Amino acid sequence: MSKIASLIPASLRSAKPSLIRVLNNKYGSDPQMVNLTIGEPDFNTADHVKLAAIKSILDNHTHYPHNWGTPGLRDAISQYLATHFGVHYDPSSEVFVTEGASGAISTIINGLCQPGDIVLIPCPAYTLYRINAQMAGAKSVELRTQEPDFKVTPQLLKDALDKYGSRVKVLVLNYPVNPTGVTYTPDELRALATVLKQYNVAILDDEIYAELTYEGHHFSLAKLLPDQTLLVSGVSKNAAMTGWRIGYICGPNDVLRSLAKVHQAAISTTATMNMDAAEEALRHGDHDTAVMKAAYDQRRQYLIKAMKKICFHFTQPSGAFYLWVKIPDNFAGNSMAYAEHLAEKAKVAIVPAAAFTNLPVRYFRISYAASMEKLRQAITGFAKVFADDQASYND
Amino acid sequence: MSKIASLIPASLRSAKPSLIRVLNNKYGSDPQMVNLTIGEPDFNTADHVKLAAIKSILDNHTHYPHNWGTPGLRDAISQYLATHFGVHYDPSSEVFVTEGASGAISTIINGLCQPGDIVLIPCPAYTLYRINAQMAGAKSVELRTQEPDFKVTPQLLKDALDKYGSRVKVLVLNYPVNPTGVTYTPDELRALATVLKQYNVAILDDEIYAELTYEGHHFSLAKLLPDQTLLVSGVSKNAAMTGWRIGYICGPNDVLRSLAKVHQAAISTTATMNMDAAEEALRHGDHDTAVMKAAYDQRRQYLIKAMKKICFHFTQPSGAFYLWVKIPDNFAGNSMAYAEHLAEKAKVAIVPAAAFTNLPVRYFRISYAASMEKLRQAITGFAKVFADDQASYND
Repeated sequence: MSKIASLIPASLRSAKPSLIRVLNNKYGSDPQMVNLTIGEPDFNTADHVKLAAIKSILDNHTHYPHNWGTPGLRDAISQYLATHFGVHYDPSSEVFVTEGASGAISTIINGLCQPGDIVLIPCPAYTLYRINAQMAGAKSVELRTQEPDFKVTPQLLKDALDKYGSRVKVLVLNYPVNPTGVTYTPDELRALATVLKQYNVAILDDEIYAELTYEGHHFSLAKLLPDQTLLVSGVSKNAAMTGWRIGYICGPNDVLRSLAKVHQAAISTTATMNMDAAEEALRHGDHDTAVMKAAYDQRRQYLIKAMKKICFHFTQPSGAFYLWVKIPDNFAGNSMAYAEHLAEKAKVAIVPAAAFTNLPVRYFRISYAASMEKLRQAITGFAKVFADDQASYND
Repeated sequence: MSKIASLIPASLRSAKPSLIRVLNNKYGSDPQMVNLTIGEPDFNTADHVKLAAIKSILDNHTHYPHNWGTPGLRDAISQYLATHFGVHYDPSSEVFVTEGASGAISTIINGLCQPGDIVLIPCPAYTLYRINAQMAGAKSVELRTQEPDFKVTPQLLKDALDKYGSRVKVLVLNYPVNPTGVTYTPDELRALATVLKQYNVAILDDEIYAELTYEGHHFSLAKLLPDQTLLVSGVSKNAAMTGWRIGYICGPNDVLRSLAKVHQAAISTTATMNMDAAEEALRHGDHDTAVMKAAYDQRRQYLIKAMKKICFHFTQPSGAFYLWVKIPDNFAGNSMAYAEHLAEKAKVAIVPAAAFTNLPVRYFRISYAASMEKLRQAITGFAKVFADDQASYND
């Protein structure tokens, strides 16, 4: 142990890194393994977006940008949200560019929460909310959603808000949902908003998968509760730009002014040429998104059919690029054990429910941001394991 | 006020943003003003570095990288530090890529400090150390250095470490120093190391200006105290790459493993193509740095001569691209008032000492990362104000 290692607080030393990253690092380099762990588009960034970045570089946009983001990108975000989802933000005061949607999530939680405060998280949920609550010294409280769709209900919300009172600073709402692939209808959001507006709680409204809604149209909570909502999104998923690290927060100016200090202390600003690329994607990316969405939808439909045929049960997916699958009752172990079972026997890497909740939920997540070929390979593996397991169970 | 604005902790609401940014935003858009506030190279990134980024984009390096940084960049950092400064880090376990040096600073302070802990900062110093201590709920203690060179001494260090004991988690050491332009000799660093090794304190060793050392050679504290030092640097200053946002931390693996969790929670990873550009800059950037350094040195020598002629007193600068100038005794106001005086009367924007210390230091910082033409304009303005002020004083 190095001399200064003892200075690391015990809570940080023992903090577990994201299980998704651990599994991706573990299985990502195995050529025998079909890796369906990570939520990363298998598409490359579109050529016209890459050209915009190249033009930016050639134009020497290599200097510090404004620390709220370039005026061009902030304007593009404002216009994109207005035309696509009917929500309206002033680009010069209500739009703030962050280092990916991750930067938005950490900024909101760190900005609003002090030690002892509470972040409410309907679970299963993306790991980063919980990790950032922990980093801020806050307590994350899981809202225990139910099968089959694992959606948060007005009653669940009300009970938690009444129970924890003013200690609750942030409620996380993410839809389409990672990892379940479900989303919320306008009526469901209206019912949640009716509860939420009775409480002074900020909503970390993560709509990063908004454009990947296959059934019905995406509807934003920001239309209902503009004064309470911090809308988080980015270009990673809809424009296949994970490696560029551009996200954003939209919300009331007085809150953004404070959050800007948190983000600036953490990283000063995001990269200039990357913002120019994101601007192009938001202004002229609709066709790219449509093409990718059609491909994801094809995979989704293939998986629904194939997994049904194997006799897996799963949550009906209508958004994002995830299938949330129930672990067969006759498997004795927990979700982590089943993930290892599938890796070993089916040569398919998936993410167990343990990555998304501390509750003993017996599910796993398949990311279908992978080629049809890989998905077919995976299905072959799953079918074999499922049949073998049933056979051994019937022995 | 928006509904949720009341949820922002009072400490954050009242936290002041960086005075440098405030002044840059205030004066940067005034075409009449010579803006010498910000520490940003006026050079563009070199063409071969831009081409490396373009190649990376064309090769579709648009996906998530490893969250410690690309193997190529980590290897380049390791080799660069070994050949340039004789410090040795294993690229696969002792090098971690961050979002600019800012990301390194925030990660170290947030990772090591819990509420109530202490960060020791020899002042005057770059604002971000103090701001991040505040964000972490830690207390920053300024070490009161003295004219004319404002360097921290072994005695100052020892007194503070004895006084505050084990509450001290981090000592900041930055050299060449922003804002004074001084640097430390190997003997001075040896004397500081002799004290430091008697205490269990981590050294946030910010060497971002290492290559801009005009007199003597840069010597790294990491050679003396590898087990206690977290070496922070990046490509912003030596390679004119501020807009790309690539920095790094090198240090003991067991500490980096914990710090990686902090950085990953905050922003997941840095951008892939930007890391490819930084790799090229570190592998093949020596000539670019030499050309820029010669230009900075010319400006430095011009400023030394011209400011002496005006009869300004200043700290002898031997590194970075800053001149630290004493406010004439006959000026009645504080450093902020003098900055406003120069902006109004000389049409030159500089940064007052108030941006770098809470102590009443009567100095200001000139950034000479600006063209000779601008510097000549500034000198004309300074000369006029100095003469007018002396005349009015003698009235």
